[in-house]
Amino acid sequence: MSLPPVGVFILGARGSVGACVALGTSGLRSGRFDATGLVTAREPFARVPLVDPSNLVLGGMDVRRGTLRDSALAISRQGIVGPDVVEAEMESLEEIDGRIVPGFLDAPDVELAQPEEVHPETLASRSVPPSEVVSRTGKAIELFQARAAVKTVVVVNLASTEAARPSPARWSELSSFEHDLAAGAPIPVSTLYAYAAIQAGCPYVNFTPSLGASPGALDALARARGVPHAGCDGKTGETLVKTALAPMFRDRNLQVLAWEGYNLLGNADGKTLSDPAHKAAKLLNKDEALRRVLGDRPDLHTRVGIEYVPSLGDWKTAWDFIHFRGFLGTRMTLQFTWTGSDSALAAPLVLDLVRLAELSCRRGESGAMAHAAAFFKSPLGTSERDFHRQNQRLEEYARAASE
Amino acid sequence: MSLPPVGVFILGARGSVGACVALGTSGLRSGRFDATGLVTAREPFARVPLVDPSNLVLGGMDVRRGTLRDSALAISRQGIVGPDVVEAEMESLEEIDGRIVPGFLDAPDVELAQPEEVHPETLASRSVPPSEVVSRTGKAIELFQARAAVKTVVVVNLASTEAARPSPARWSELSSFEHDLAAGAPIPVSTLYAYAAIQAGCPYVNFTPSLGASPGALDALARARGVPHAGCDGKTGETLVKTALAPMFRDRNLQVLAWEGYNLLGNADGKTLSDPAHKAAKLLNKDEALRRVLGDRPDLHTRVGIEYVPSLGDWKTAWDFIHFRGFLGTRMTLQFTWTGSDSALAAPLVLDLVRLAELSCRRGESGAMAHAAAFFKSPLGTSERDFHRQNQRLEEYARAASE
Amino acid sequence: MSLPPVGVFILGARGSVGACVALGTSGLRSGRFDATGLVTAREPFARVPLVDPSNLVLGGMDVRRGTLRDSALAISRQGIVGPDVVEAEMESLEEIDGRIVPGFLDAPDVELAQPEEVHPETLASRSVPPSEVVSRTGKAIELFQARAAVKTVVVVNLASTEAARPSPARWSELSSFEHDLAAGAPIPVSTLYAYAAIQAGCPYVNFTPSLGASPGALDALARARGVPHAGCDGKTGETLVKTALAPMFRDRNLQVLAWEGYNLLGNADGKTLSDPAHKAAKLLNKDEALRRVLGDRPDLHTRVGIEYVPSLGDWKTAWDFIHFRGFLGTRMTLQFTWTGSDSALAAPLVLDLVRLAELSCRRGESGAMAHAAAFFKSPLGTSERDFHRQNQRLEEYARAASE
Amino acid sequence: MSLPPVGVFILGARGSVGACVALGTSGLRSGRFDATGLVTAREPFARVPLVDPSNLVLGGMDVRRGTLRDSALAISRQGIVGPDVVEAEMESLEEIDGRIVPGFLDAPDVELAQPEEVHPETLASRSVPPSEVVSRTGKAIELFQARAAVKTVVVVNLASTEAARPSPARWSELSSFEHDLAAGAPIPVSTLYAYAAIQAGCPYVNFTPSLGASPGALDALARARGVPHAGCDGKTGETLVKTALAPMFRDRNLQVLAWEGYNLLGNADGKTLSDPAHKAAKLLNKDEALRRVLGDRPDLHTRVGIEYVPSLGDWKTAWDFIHFRGFLGTRMTLQFTWTGSDSALAAPLVLDLVRLAELSCRRGESGAMAHAAAFFKSPLGTSERDFHRQNQRLEEYARAASE
Repeated sequence: MSLPPVGVFILGARGSVGACVALGTSGLRSGRFDATGLVTAREPFARVPLVDPSNLVLGGMDVRRGTLRDSALAISRQGIVGPDVVEAEMESLEEIDGRIVPGFLDAPDVELAQPEEVHPETLASRSVPPSEVVSRTGKAIELFQARAAVKTVVVVNLASTEAARPSPARWSELSSFEHDLAAGAPIPVSTLYAYAAIQAGCPYVNFTPSLGASPGALDALARARGVPHAGCDGKTGETLVKTALAPMFRDRNLQVLAWEGYNLLGNADGKTLSDPAHKAAKLLNKDEALRRVLGDRPDLHTRVGIEYVPSLGDWKTAWDFIHFRGFLGTRMTLQFTWTGSDSALAAPLVLDLVRLAELSCRRGESGAMAHAAAFFKSPLGTSERDFHRQNQRLEEYARAASE
Repeated sequence: MSLPPVGVFILGARGSVGACVALGTSGLRSGRFDATGLVTAREPFARVPLVDPSNLVLGGMDVRRGTLRDSALAISRQGIVGPDVVEAEMESLEEIDGRIVPGFLDAPDVELAQPEEVHPETLASRSVPPSEVVSRTGKAIELFQARAAVKTVVVVNLASTEAARPSPARWSELSSFEHDLAAGAPIPVSTLYAYAAIQAGCPYVNFTPSLGASPGALDALARARGVPHAGCDGKTGETLVKTALAPMFRDRNLQVLAWEGYNLLGNADGKTLSDPAHKAAKLLNKDEALRRVLGDRPDLHTRVGIEYVPSLGDWKTAWDFIHFRGFLGTRMTLQFTWTGSDSALAAPLVLDLVRLAELSCRRGESGAMAHAAAFFKSPLGTSERDFHRQNQRLEEYARAASE
Repeated sequence: MSLPPVGVFILGARGSVGACVALGTSGLRSGRFDATGLVTAREPFARVPLVDPSNLVLGGMDVRRGTLRDSALAISRQGIVGPDVVEAEMESLEEIDGRIVPGFLDAPDVELAQPEEVHPETLASRSVPPSEVVSRTGKAIELFQARAAVKTVVVVNLASTEAARPSPARWSELSSFEHDLAAGAPIPVSTLYAYAAIQAGCPYVNFTPSLGASPGALDALARARGVPHAGCDGKTGETLVKTALAPMFRDRNLQVLAWEGYNLLGNADGKTLSDPAHKAAKLLNKDEALRRVLGDRPDLHTRVGIEYVPSLGDWKTAWDFIHFRGFLGTRMTLQFTWTGSDSALAAPLVLDLVRLAELSCRRGESGAMAHAAAFFKSPLGTSERDFHRQNQRLEEYARAASE
Repeated sequence: MSLPPVGVFILGARGSVGACVALGTSGLRSGRFDATGLVTAREPFARVPLVDPSNLVLGGMDVRRGTLRDSALAISRQGIVGPDVVEAEMESLEEIDGRIVPGFLDAPDVELAQPEEVHPETLASRSVPPSEVVSRTGKAIELFQARAAVKTVVVVNLASTEAARPSPARWSELSSFEHDLAAGAPIPVSTLYAYAAIQAGCPYVNFTPSLGASPGALDALARARGVPHAGCDGKTGETLVKTALAPMFRDRNLQVLAWEGYNLLGNADGKTLSDPAHKAAKLLNKDEALRRVLGDRPDLHTRVGIEYVPSLGDWKTAWDFIHFRGFLGTRMTLQFTWTGSDSALAAPLVLDLVRLAELSCRRGESGAMAHAAAFFKSPLGTSERDFHRQNQRLEEYARAASE
């Protein structure tokens, strides 16, 4: 029995990851690409009733000028796919583009954004009050649902990382958050989007380090509305390797003295992160993982650097150096270099999360999807950072959800 | 309640690993070293009734001339411990040395061995028939038990890797193996040692790639005699990292195209492995792990190289290069370099295995210790090679054995 | 004053390097590519009267079936150039293809070659006597010269590495070599080609490790005919880095203990080298360089490994590990990983050598071009292997040849 | 004919490098160590009349409490030499220690210094006016000369890097500098030391990135006094490799797009550099080298990071990542990891520079020793940063100075 199509409303739909998601779903449909990289395409997911990735209808919002085709061509210039692939999937890209509407700029980004790169409607709406961002987003989702002719819409945040700001303690309560919202207090756009999505009864996935649905208020809303959500910050590369390797040191009782990580990248994400406030949001999640797995010893020295190296484009290169102490006080090292296309690593995980969030919703689950922790640097609903334990939990969930 | 002392009869007691085991137990006793590197020193082993590592009495056999002190000084010249440490633990080393007797050369090694490096009694016994190797080894264990004044003796093989030879199919049966033994058929010395140990009711651990107790006949004997055994080939460095990382690729559905590994080392083990027949034994175990975890696809290209680089001494350096395919057909890489003291990595695992084997014996378990798979490249009693799953099984065992 | 066009007769014209040379010259002409990678495009070559790379007319011989377009598409599938580039330069590729005639198989390759991959005329000529290979090649060069309407033809060997064979001592004399040639003795095809080229008065460049013009007899012929020649084995990647770094250790009086190099590659060259006899030819040149620079100390441990890893295609990946001793007996390490497209690295050097060989010829120089040593792993006419000293000699030559 | 002994007055004589210099000269004398790592111990220096390193008499100044033995033991705890070596050379270390007097703190360091780590006399002299620092230093050198019974004293700066401060333009003139000195203007201590040394007619070497004799005024003084000087910032590790490799890219016309370097170290130098003002001084010299060799293109992205990783101690570990563009627009990478003992790399170069400075003085040369550029990150007297060209100039000097 085949499941009905599902809508995917992407915040930041014209970014690199968005373009790879678009090329990927359309390429899966045409048979050009296989499901390599999709976690839910392998065991133990075979008998789990997940929507088919070729049955997803994409759309969303974006603050940028330019088309999805432009982004896909940029992806191709970086050698992620050939220019012939973009050519072949052009019709599909244009169709998706027709379902993308202008988004809203986060307040700190109003200053930073280059006017000529921002959509005129986005610029025009830059002083719209928070409550109106919510209501307009809600309407955009509704419109998309109608255009896409789908019953369920999953909302996914793939927009550029926002500047880090402390999340006020009172946002752990839904009532105080809604009070602030009504009063026009400054709230990150990612959280306004999340609020709108959940309010509209849509499962919500935050693949970025931005605040999104992380405050308790949003989780309370999700539980009240019977909606599942997952986040935050997709675990695609260096942190994935970190959380796969750190358990080995823990389980062998080898004492990590220092774990230094350097990330070089040159895409729009990298450019955004070259601003200190934006970088702070990212670094927090990357560093925390290690201390959760290895124990937060004062003599454990860790560092995570992210540097913008324009020539690398989407090809993230990370070097990690691990200094550790073994028996007899011996000091040893492990170092690794990871080279991967950040967007091509993220895209299939986005598809996995859409499938899992829609399933969760259909199964009547609500609140943070702790079983999806393996996909995130800072998973909501659990403190587990060990990739293997996270993955085991996901597999147990899959077995329980099998038909 | 403290447990009585336990004897450890080490085959190859004067090698690098043997010297590190000796320095380590004596340093643990004096407080010079802590238990870093011992798996059984961390949770969930706190309430498991294991013998204290400082309560182990060491001895064994070795084919080489020279003393344990010589080996400890060689270890110190390579910067693994300071010369002051060897000086301080001298008395303890000499005491252990007094419990080490001449061992037997494996037939293919008779040709290769430098006479001036081999103990005269070992040379004299080089044409002794297999059955006599067994009976003399049995007597040596008995004598050690008396001298060490212990009830339980665990026998551990740390001797240099033997030349690889096919294990005849008929050795899966105890009776046919014993027929060959009586008939004087060529049997690797490691297997004769294992036979003698198990026959004597001693738990047996094979930390090397040599045949040891791997044939079914030996496992049958162990079950008949109510003796546990574990092996083979300690997982200390590159293969440890491999089996910790490979599951990540599997679980993310990333298709590994090639996994090329190069191991450089310069200790006696490295020298032995520079002989092709000896190297073959080692490579088999190192390569098999990957195919077990990733699936034995014909398009998966793997290679394991081991090269003897004298200047490195005990400091094994390994480079692994992993080429993999992700979503949209993108090709990415991960590479790592591991630098560790092979002997200092092995020694604490030897102590762990002695503790676990003695516990197993006390609990009345017999045959292959499948719960100890995490310690080995080619674990007996299970086909699991995923380090994290192996470790989970060990932890479950520990919880079950807790008081 | 512009120089007249020059013909380039390439042995192995349809290989990866050949395809990159074709795409490159035609892309330089159309302005699609710039001269990055061409040594002769930078100072001090500005006033040296070299033929313009866009003024080269390509052609040659090849043993394979299939067209230059097929090779160019294979290059594009590996992401070296986009498929759009091949499309755009199609006309030019076809024109070159029309000037490529069937080549001759080297005797040891007759067995190894897959008949379906070899040109029918090449198969038909596999038992042609050496002297006829020479005469037919001479005629092919003549025909090319006429078709290309050029006065000067430079012959360049880019064919797959031949199986290594000792070069008989008597080939140091032209007369004994010619006696063997007339007698039908087995002579590598690369050397027959070189003989034909020089005999025809064409400057000859051997970019491969095959024998080519290395025997003294060929140099004598070149001097007699007033023809310059250069070789052998293009220094494109790992050996380039080696010979740039080794002088640093020498000049700082740091004692290299071990230099271990591993090369992974997956192109046709890699496949050829997976045959031991072919690999031997290559390894000799790669290892020799180090001992020439660092001194041939018995305690210097070096190794060069080349492994065929199909998934890498043309993207050679090499890891080098250098263990060295400094003051106070301290032991330190340097390791590097090189990732480069072998063919895209080779192609501009081929253009450089064609330009330099033609200039040399025009200047009336003959015999081995020692000033071109920087381009080769095993330069003829000099024992200098230090890249910086080789390069300095090249720059001095350029200054002397400036107008 | 043997040369008379030469005094070496070391500023920062009890640091790690100072301790290695002390252990090294005394170990060269006793035959424990050989001259590996000394540039002047190899060709073409055999016939250059340099003072024998075993004929150097050490002493100097230091701001720290504690003895040279303490520093040597710290060196030994890091595995650079064995504790037995320190024990054996104790007498010699104590003798040198007797010739070390309290030094002066640089103004910005007065705040940062831990009082319990600073010598009481140094603390007491912290508000001494600049001119008195000069006169007291001059007297200390004189006293040392007498105690050491030497005619020539070479002054070497090995003290911790000072906080970076702009050098006023007017310090290019001796008269304005001396005016500031007399007026009590703030002048870095390293420059006061340099002034005192040159004033006293001593050759001066600045092995650190501190200002020292870099201002033109000091060079003018040196020329007036007939004294040679050299600096600054010893080129021991990552920058050495950088300046050995960068010429290769330049000479092959490969376009470097990005060169990212990360240095991890944990010694006192590393601790000092974790202060931003001190780090700035260091980074300037490390980054400049690349742009000098490769050309200061706006599209060349470079970065040099230095991070303090306490567990590494003196074992500097650096990772460099080079992204470059070759023919056909292909993008390729080279990455290297360097692991070396910073102090053991520096010590022999200090001995080389002492030998060369003394020779220069004896030959009547004065001002910046441009022929010593190969030893420095920011050589005085030349803009050449290419290691090989620097080294060639040194060798030419040696040949000219040969007897």
